Amino acid sequence: MHVNPAEILYWSTMLASILSAAAGVLDARGKQFDLFGVMIIAFCAALGGGTLRDVILDRPVFWVKDSSYLVFTWLGAILTFYLARWIKLSSRWFVVPDAIALGLYTVAGTHAALVLGNDWLVASFMGVITGVAGGILRDILLNQEPLVFQGPLYATASWAGSVLFIILFHQKTDPVAATVAAGILIAMVRLLAVRWNLVLPRYREKQH
Amino acid sequence: MHVNPAEILYWSTMLASILSAAAGVLDARGKQFDLFGVMIIAFCAALGGGTLRDVILDRPVFWVKDSSYLVFTWLGAILTFYLARWIKLSSRWFVVPDAIALGLYTVAGTHAALVLGNDWLVASFMGVITGVAGGILRDILLNQEPLVFQGPLYATASWAGSVLFIILFHQKTDPVAATVAAGILIAMVRLLAVRWNLVLPRYREKQH
Amino acid sequence: MHVNPAEILYWSTMLASILSAAAGVLDARGKQFDLFGVMIIAFCAALGGGTLRDVILDRPVFWVKDSSYLVFTWLGAILTFYLARWIKLSSRWFVVPDAIALGLYTVAGTHAALVLGNDWLVASFMGVITGVAGGILRDILLNQEPLVFQGPLYATASWAGSVLFIILFHQKTDPVAATVAAGILIAMVRLLAVRWNLVLPRYREKQH
Repeated sequence: MHVNPAEILYWSTMLASILSAAAGVLDARGKQFDLFGVMIIAFCAALGGGTLRDVILDRPVFWVKDSSYLVFTWLGAILTFYLARWIKLSSRWFVVPDAIALGLYTVAGTHAALVLGNDWLVASFMGVITGVAGGILRDILLNQEPLVFQGPLYATASWAGSVLFIILFHQKTDPVAATVAAGILIAMVRLLAVRWNLVLPRYREKQH
Repeated sequence: MHVNPAEILYWSTMLASILSAAAGVLDARGKQFDLFGVMIIAFCAALGGGTLRDVILDRPVFWVKDSSYLVFTWLGAILTFYLARWIKLSSRWFVVPDAIALGLYTVAGTHAALVLGNDWLVASFMGVITGVAGGILRDILLNQEPLVFQGPLYATASWAGSVLFIILFHQKTDPVAATVAAGILIAMVRLLAVRWNLVLPRYREKQH
Repeated sequence: MHVNPAEILYWSTMLASILSAAAGVLDARGKQFDLFGVMIIAFCAALGGGTLRDVILDRPVFWVKDSSYLVFTWLGAILTFYLARWIKLSSRWFVVPDAIALGLYTVAGTHAALVLGNDWLVASFMGVITGVAGGILRDILLNQEPLVFQGPLYATASWAGSVLFIILFHQKTDPVAATVAAGILIAMVRLLAVRWNLVLPRYREKQH
């Protein structure tokens, strides 16, 4: 049996959409949102970062070209919406899948910017946007301060992996190998940071 | 006297802009916004959904091409701003015009996506975005949880009418007839839901 | 020594990016944001308005084409982030640079819209968006009501200067002279309004 690496990546991203949507829905707990509201939260959490990337890079928006992303995102959202009534779902179950999704989204965003000929700073920023902007949009809709600014090395992990991918890309490394390497780096940094609660320096003005 | 259906639709949309702007301004009551703030709220409420649709579909933004939309939106906003100082305006007066505006915006958004060759899922989502995203942007600016996620069947009405329009569109129904049918369905579902307080299932996690 | 006016404008805009970023970072005081969060706030405050303008006008986003904007914005952000730990920085120091930045951004946005052939209403609105939307995005991320809607003639100054620039542009005035005139008008109106606390009429419904 022959397996196409591009197809593995494609279906991994779909799986990431389902999981990000589910995690986004769990974050809306406590708010009295209706089913539609939950679907919009899931859309932002799962597809918002990539949408922003495509709009800024003036590419066709990915889910407009391929609506399977909408199907899988909303499947994940509706399932979680009803499951959460019967089963006590824990946000902690999503830490590992979320770290993997962060890796996949970051690499996809970085790659999209690189093939358009952007320099490393723009490409790595687009990778981070693709990885984390969905969570920021979700928190804006939930009317709360973006958690991603406070969590353990979320954006930092994304950025480090993006830079690794850019280096490997310019050295003409096999794309699959580069994706796996950068993805693993991102997921590892994020999970180790969660495990040992590593955070970036916080902003605190000297008190007088 | 001959009346062009396209012109009726055009002026209906302008009227919808005025009314959405007025309703948006009333929603800003209680916030200490100045005239400029009120104009931005009105802009988001009336034209925000269509702007998002055009950016995502990579079409020229409609009010950049035809600035009459800005003129009518701000006319509605400024009038309401000053009228509200003298007359007790009630948000309830806007329920019927708002339901009609929801219908017009949804059909316009769905049609724009269909003529670009998008599939039904993308087209109906763009219809809903055009219809409801303005209200979401308004609530984000007002720093409150989006009401559209909690109200009676707002987005659901929009989506149902959008799907009806798509079916009629693919059956090559006369565009005016399809617009009227979908618009009436949206306004009716919305108004009946408001009347009997029909809502989508709310999100509530099982308590332990 | 020959100095190119276009280069002066270019470096002025870079300086404006540093100062807007620094002011944006100071606004985040009291929130427990980490370094990455502060960099995103700075990005929105300094480059958010221009990004929105470019997306709406369907132009290539300026900092994607020239990543120096990112470099200078983040330089300003990181410096302020660390300086604020040791020195008591005051927001008041930024009132004058901020007024000048408002002028530069507004003129740049108006000019970009005019050369694409837009009418005066769209061009002046794009000028205002370029000047003030960054501050609105910053406040949305900080989860607070946009200050720009309440401050002394912030958007009004921007709009007045934009209209002056449009008049001079259509009279084929030398672009540098038009930029300086409009920029000075904007900074003066803003600073005088701050000095004497001039504000637009506030929104207040008549009490019954």
